[in-house]
Amino acid sequence: MPLSSDRHCPPIKVVKGAQPVAGIRWATAFANIKELDFQALPATPKTDVALMEIAAKSSISAVYTRNAFRAAPVTIAEKKTDQLRADIELPHYLLINSGNANAGTGQLGHDATLASCQMIADSVSGDATQVIPFSTGVIGVPLPAARIQTVASDLAAGLDAHAWDAAAQAILTTDTCEKLYHVIVEMPEGEVTLTGIAKGAGMIKPNMATMLAYIATDARVSSDVLDKSLSQAVELSFNRITVDGDTSTNDACVLAATGQSNVSVEGSAASLQLFQSALNALLQKLAQAIIRDAEGASKFTTLKIQGGASQQECLAVGYTVAESPLVKTALFASDANWGRILAAVGRAGLQELDVSKVEIYLGDHCVCQDGGRSAGYDEETASAIMAKSEIDITIVLNRGRFSETLWTSDLSHDYVRINAEYRT
Amino acid sequence: MPLSSDRHCPPIKVVKGAQPVAGIRWATAFANIKELDFQALPATPKTDVALMEIAAKSSISAVYTRNAFRAAPVTIAEKKTDQLRADIELPHYLLINSGNANAGTGQLGHDATLASCQMIADSVSGDATQVIPFSTGVIGVPLPAARIQTVASDLAAGLDAHAWDAAAQAILTTDTCEKLYHVIVEMPEGEVTLTGIAKGAGMIKPNMATMLAYIATDARVSSDVLDKSLSQAVELSFNRITVDGDTSTNDACVLAATGQSNVSVEGSAASLQLFQSALNALLQKLAQAIIRDAEGASKFTTLKIQGGASQQECLAVGYTVAESPLVKTALFASDANWGRILAAVGRAGLQELDVSKVEIYLGDHCVCQDGGRSAGYDEETASAIMAKSEIDITIVLNRGRFSETLWTSDLSHDYVRINAEYRT
Repeated sequence: MPLSSDRHCPPIKVVKGAQPVAGIRWATAFANIKELDFQALPATPKTDVALMEIAAKSSISAVYTRNAFRAAPVTIAEKKTDQLRADIELPHYLLINSGNANAGTGQLGHDATLASCQMIADSVSGDATQVIPFSTGVIGVPLPAARIQTVASDLAAGLDAHAWDAAAQAILTTDTCEKLYHVIVEMPEGEVTLTGIAKGAGMIKPNMATMLAYIATDARVSSDVLDKSLSQAVELSFNRITVDGDTSTNDACVLAATGQSNVSVEGSAASLQLFQSALNALLQKLAQAIIRDAEGASKFTTLKIQGGASQQECLAVGYTVAESPLVKTALFASDANWGRILAAVGRAGLQELDVSKVEIYLGDHCVCQDGGRSAGYDEETASAIMAKSEIDITIVLNRGRFSETLWTSDLSHDYVRINAEYRT
Repeated sequence: MPLSSDRHCPPIKVVKGAQPVAGIRWATAFANIKELDFQALPATPKTDVALMEIAAKSSISAVYTRNAFRAAPVTIAEKKTDQLRADIELPHYLLINSGNANAGTGQLGHDATLASCQMIADSVSGDATQVIPFSTGVIGVPLPAARIQTVASDLAAGLDAHAWDAAAQAILTTDTCEKLYHVIVEMPEGEVTLTGIAKGAGMIKPNMATMLAYIATDARVSSDVLDKSLSQAVELSFNRITVDGDTSTNDACVLAATGQSNVSVEGSAASLQLFQSALNALLQKLAQAIIRDAEGASKFTTLKIQGGASQQECLAVGYTVAESPLVKTALFASDANWGRILAAVGRAGLQELDVSKVEIYLGDHCVCQDGGRSAGYDEETASAIMAKSEIDITIVLNRGRFSETLWTSDLSHDYVRINAEYRT
């Protein structure tokens, strides 16, 4: 039987929707980043720019895509966040646009990003070093920075502590719904809030926070601790999901701690652990929301790999299964075709895998054992499990003590339709 | 500009259709391997068993899937071909069934394969060691060996040198057309013929001959040379194609040299090279036929990676691009979305990749240069190239002297439909 323990699910209550975080304000606008003809615009076009203000004296931590072709804003944003330690006395501004990734745009794109940062800096009477840029959308078209200019002063004037909802909307591209959650944690030292938004539906594969996500807390956390906390939380959430295995050029995840609750999470190991658990749970909820909203997705699949000889091999098996087009189409078809899962495990590259020890479960029904169909296999039971919109698959390797949990989606007609129509 | 030389295309004429090979006979039958109800059968059901007779004193070489979950027939066939050196004085029989892969079937499947070999051995008054088994089809259901018994004597009685066409049909599963080619080579020592058939349309990823293929020649080739020739030819053909990245549990490629032309290919280095070129060309044609007939495929794509620092990195880039669902849906949509190609190159894991040196060509139109859209980029030209049914993509890394060529297909609605409906 598969193990029941799961270190990925601490008992923390993550709630859908926003809870303002002291020290954080948002503003959004429609800047027509896609430069659509006036006639082509709907009466109320979707907002495509968001500005996040992070109060002075906050700590800020960020992780970025590992794709070698990094978009202009990613290169610039990473340099800026690396230098943050020095000028954290000032407020900072995250400028996020959807509709254009400004990736694969060479010098033109680089210049456009710098120009847009300057526009925001001017509108808040600050310096460009305080503005950190993020873009998501179509690759290969330089960002029309002039479009940012048209909304810069409105953004500065409109900053509002209650605009998390609007921000969650403004950063979306092919997403069908906003991804916005919060957690309130009662620490021995007092209450702290964590609120986060994310966007992402396709080109999703963990190799550093594969999407955009912005998380803030009013807890007080030093920069070094914040870096470690974000790194661990991302590893157990955004780095454990895959839609199509395609790592984006633009992914980023930013975590800001304003300290305005006056509650430090570093008072004791227990406090820090509680904060970490809350952060992990919040990021997992956001990551799972990306999978639930994956392009064309009709099945939310939790994939547990147990009994592996190493973390690495659990992940190798997990991603091979999660990214197999044949497994994904079987999920879409509610087809209990466990042979495709078995074939994917077999090509995951594990050394000296004893296939006769591998067990595969759909839900808690064992479908594969002793190198073949399990003695108790029942097609009706298996099919009923596959027919659900949430499916648990457990693969027990029985060769070690490591386990990993991943989340993925199915491969549907709508995935093909959405991605075939994306630019047209 | 991309290089124009291409070592994968020797000037050898490969012809569609069969040319009998002296020493080879085939027989086919309908055995109802899927055990369908009598009422469910069409008036003329597709044949599902083929028997290939390889005359005594032939050399036989074979390569098999590297999937850890190997089907029962693969395990048994490999052991038998490894032992072939000893009893090559006798004729050999390849027993191939479609409709059931006999993979993931444990001891039951193993026993069923051994039983079916014995049935054929009895029907040809031979020994089971002379019968080598192959299966392709659904995973997870033990082969109904009794179905082989119903056709065993008909197969033995029906062996015919002209039945290549029928054999090419009998081994198919989701394929929409037979894959059958031959080459006639004028060697200094005389004429030799090579004829081959293949099956495969999905679960196609090179990690040893990812499909079934049976090739025969009347040339005289020693076992050791035959092994090396097959290995090289497979590396440049079946190991350079991908449909969906899924390696099957059942893949095999067998090459038999009957020697009945009395022409040895080992007389000179030039003769051996000519034979090798013919074999490479034949296997490439068969491999490309698999891609052309890939499940739901509407685009035949040739992917050239040039200027790599090693063969390995050329292949890493090639497969990352070829298997990217986003690149594949763009191919399907005839969308010149080169940003997706760039993003896939960026996540292929190359160390210290200078993205500003990478060039991407659609046909001979340069779309990406200096880290962004090329100065001469023209959307109309690019779209016209993508609208064709055959597309060449060249990626020049400009960091070394290695190059590789791969072939792949697009990701269409029909791929999803075919694989969602496979068992239903």
